[in-house]
Amino acid sequence: MKARVSVMLKTGVLDPQGEAIRHALGALGFDGVDGVRQGKVIELDLADGTTEDRIREMCDKLLANTVIENYQIEIL
Amino acid sequence: MKARVSVMLKTGVLDPQGEAIRHALGALGFDGVDGVRQGKVIELDLADGTTEDRIREMCDKLLANTVIENYQIEIL
Repeated sequence: MKARVSVMLKTGVLDPQGEAIRHALGALGFDGVDGVRQGKVIELDLADGTTEDRIREMCDKLLANTVIENYQIEIL
Repeated sequence: MKARVSVMLKTGVLDPQGEAIRHALGALGFDGVDGVRQGKVIELDLADGTTEDRIREMCDKLLANTVIENYQIEIL
């Protein structure tokens, strides 16, 4: 089975990388870009029957820093 | 409007970061993780009416390196 975990910085946490992208898009002539946030996406190829709770545990222990990041799990 | 762009390395392109995560998950006792790929997710806050073609242009010009990366656009 496959799962996708998206990890984004929490609202209010400064995101210089996203800000740099917003700036660069403006410089390239793309107007109307009001905000950009960059995060990580991690695609996991897991043994069948792995529960969402188990994936949540992976996120809490390794994949996300829950002090500053939110994560979202999708089973594909 | 909001859009989410996911950028992943193409199949066959070495992903040392994903490999490091796979290794670390194993070391933490998470068995059955057969593969991990890490990519980027970019959330864009755009002016209403921005077309998907325009976002595709942003991807081709800046957000993704289309030689080694695939991207996927979702309008939220």
